[in-house]
Amino acid sequence: MTLMEDAKKGIVTPSIETVAKTEGIDPETVCSCVAKGLIAIPVNNRRETLPIGIGKYMSTKINANVGTSRDYVDIDAEIKKAKAAEAFGAHAVMDLSTGGNLDEIRTRILKSVNIPVGTVPIYQAAASRKVVVEMTSDDMFNAVRKHAEQGVDFVTVHAGVNLNSLERLRQSDRIMNVVSRGGSFTLAWMLHNGEDNPFYAEFDYLLEIAKEYDMTLSLGDGMRPGCIADASDRPKFMEFITLGELVKRARAANVQTFVEGPGHVPLNEIELSVRGMKELCNGAPLYLLGPLVTDIAPGFDHITGAIGGAVAGMHGTDFLCMVTPSEHLALPTLEDIKEGLLVTKVAAHTIDLIKEGPRERAWEKDLAMAYARRDLDWEKQFELAIDGNRARKIRDARKTESDTCSMCGELCALKIVKEAFEKKNSEE
Amino acid sequence: MTLMEDAKKGIVTPSIETVAKTEGIDPETVCSCVAKGLIAIPVNNRRETLPIGIGKYMSTKINANVGTSRDYVDIDAEIKKAKAAEAFGAHAVMDLSTGGNLDEIRTRILKSVNIPVGTVPIYQAAASRKVVVEMTSDDMFNAVRKHAEQGVDFVTVHAGVNLNSLERLRQSDRIMNVVSRGGSFTLAWMLHNGEDNPFYAEFDYLLEIAKEYDMTLSLGDGMRPGCIADASDRPKFMEFITLGELVKRARAANVQTFVEGPGHVPLNEIELSVRGMKELCNGAPLYLLGPLVTDIAPGFDHITGAIGGAVAGMHGTDFLCMVTPSEHLALPTLEDIKEGLLVTKVAAHTIDLIKEGPRERAWEKDLAMAYARRDLDWEKQFELAIDGNRARKIRDARKTESDTCSMCGELCALKIVKEAFEKKNSEE
Repeated sequence: MTLMEDAKKGIVTPSIETVAKTEGIDPETVCSCVAKGLIAIPVNNRRETLPIGIGKYMSTKINANVGTSRDYVDIDAEIKKAKAAEAFGAHAVMDLSTGGNLDEIRTRILKSVNIPVGTVPIYQAAASRKVVVEMTSDDMFNAVRKHAEQGVDFVTVHAGVNLNSLERLRQSDRIMNVVSRGGSFTLAWMLHNGEDNPFYAEFDYLLEIAKEYDMTLSLGDGMRPGCIADASDRPKFMEFITLGELVKRARAANVQTFVEGPGHVPLNEIELSVRGMKELCNGAPLYLLGPLVTDIAPGFDHITGAIGGAVAGMHGTDFLCMVTPSEHLALPTLEDIKEGLLVTKVAAHTIDLIKEGPRERAWEKDLAMAYARRDLDWEKQFELAIDGNRARKIRDARKTESDTCSMCGELCALKIVKEAFEKKNSEE
Repeated sequence: MTLMEDAKKGIVTPSIETVAKTEGIDPETVCSCVAKGLIAIPVNNRRETLPIGIGKYMSTKINANVGTSRDYVDIDAEIKKAKAAEAFGAHAVMDLSTGGNLDEIRTRILKSVNIPVGTVPIYQAAASRKVVVEMTSDDMFNAVRKHAEQGVDFVTVHAGVNLNSLERLRQSDRIMNVVSRGGSFTLAWMLHNGEDNPFYAEFDYLLEIAKEYDMTLSLGDGMRPGCIADASDRPKFMEFITLGELVKRARAANVQTFVEGPGHVPLNEIELSVRGMKELCNGAPLYLLGPLVTDIAPGFDHITGAIGGAVAGMHGTDFLCMVTPSEHLALPTLEDIKEGLLVTKVAAHTIDLIKEGPRERAWEKDLAMAYARRDLDWEKQFELAIDGNRARKIRDARKTESDTCSMCGELCALKIVKEAFEKKNSEE
């Protein structure tokens, strides 16, 4: 029995119960949304995972990517990153390792954190052969099964990168073609082998494996635009259409899914992308990489991603993939992960302030901060801040003699207005 | 003759010529927009200033705030900040000093930079008396005149904080009342003296001074919301109404204006604020402080401001006031100014990508970056980046043996797809 099967029968499972409690929403609503595929709770039946809800009425969740690359294989460092991500508030971790002993890394990450863990099995399939395009269909499915057996809670499969989207790509004027790593493996594989993507052609087999382990499918955005000029084009919308059909099939098979979204998108096209995806994919939870709202800010892409994520959130985003300052430049360091995560947390909270479901709870936090600010209660402000230590450090570095801050000192607007009103009222 | 007078006569002045050239727009359009008050070019007739255009069809401009506080009076440090701001791409600098010899600081800043300089004369008026509320109407106007004589290009006057908005404030349920420093001085003054704000009551006198020096008025947002809960309320809209009337009077007097906007605003109320202001103020250029999209991120308010600024930009923002990581916590350091400025530059560029006027030029930059990325041309990428040094540093810190980056190494999506297409094409 998968969670979705239970939910369709109206059974409030412990996972649903936990999510409902965490979110402050009644369990029946969560159950009904899981049944419809509007909320995903990725928990592999082989692993003890803290259940988190992604989707409708749920607070915005954050994923942190960790993992080795061919150039940097330091497993301990990646474990540290995964743990730090969890400690700094990530709701899920994806192991994107491509270098070193992939099984060992994955096993250790699964043991190191309590939050859901995601992977991209095609990386392992590709690594098993000398050349990427020589991997077999079996390599691909075996990798998925292995990850499922090990307890991975959700896997990205680029099932929307198929011969149809390849043709749309050929008919397009894309500058950067495919910038998704898994998407590029798939595309190269199709070109080399002259066959359709096995994850698409044999999607039912994928569903069988996923169902056996109650593993959630993250339908990858292999066709995501890699630059502003490529945004909102036919290849991307073709992929949304395909993914929407796959969402429908997955729901029928009682397998949970969410859909990954673009990419590089200018501010005024984000609504189109997000609403397009939501419509075409029947309201599936949306997992966003960015969107990055400009191409020319390497070193600041955690911020271009926060801007894009927040704008996307105005139209229905559920799950943000943290972007680090190293994006487009290098494998992120531990510090990059922390910084990216904190900035993504800020963006996620700005979304929660306006999202149906988490809105009231998020609003309470800002309200408490407003009162603490008004009352110049600094300890309370640090307690309520997304990163109280950072705030305290900044304030302490430039102290003031007064109870205000060193920007205004005794000329603090809050203080002046308060005193003026008090004086006036005492006179009346 | 003020610039606006010239523009109304259709005279393309050297300032208009320069702005038109910088923006790549024909001088007649700029001239016509200046005449209508839709573009402001703040240049005091006593000072040699690099003319910049703020408003319709103009690329998004950035202001950097510098200046001493009561706790930190280090004039050299503030001069360094002003120069660094100019070097890092600020289009204007505001001297918000409240500590030390204000005349000396202002004089030195005016000499140190070539970009427009703005001030808030009421700070000096307030500093001239032992208690803020004891400043006289003469103190206020004398400060304005002194700044004008010294060559200040634009001054913030909180003329919308009047008895009418005070009454709206009293009728409201605001948590934080007034968080604008100048607004708080004005409000306290009105409460203490039982009279209306001189800058409002004698606005014509203000216009006379401004006209004499062709100094631009930045109509301050003294009633801006200081927390999410206070956003989009009656006191703020009352101020917009008042400022709109003052914009009309200023235009009739041939004095240029722009209007300052809020404050703390949740994502889904920014459009209302921006469009409300634009409608109520007859399309006057909008100068934004933030908006900050959450209260709970002290230490990250340069980022909450970048998010809010970008969203505001979707509805018509012209001039962004840089926010630093020290906002709400302390007087910013030089490093804070640089960081805040760079992040604001990123936000401004994301706006330019969608704004009528600068759009095509901004788009070209991203397009060039897309090609450089596709071709793995790293030097070109650093050249095109908003901060090439930072990008280079990140890449160099985690090198790769390949011509890609250490995130993917030889598994670079761009490379794999390129090779796959090349191989396929050579076979056909």
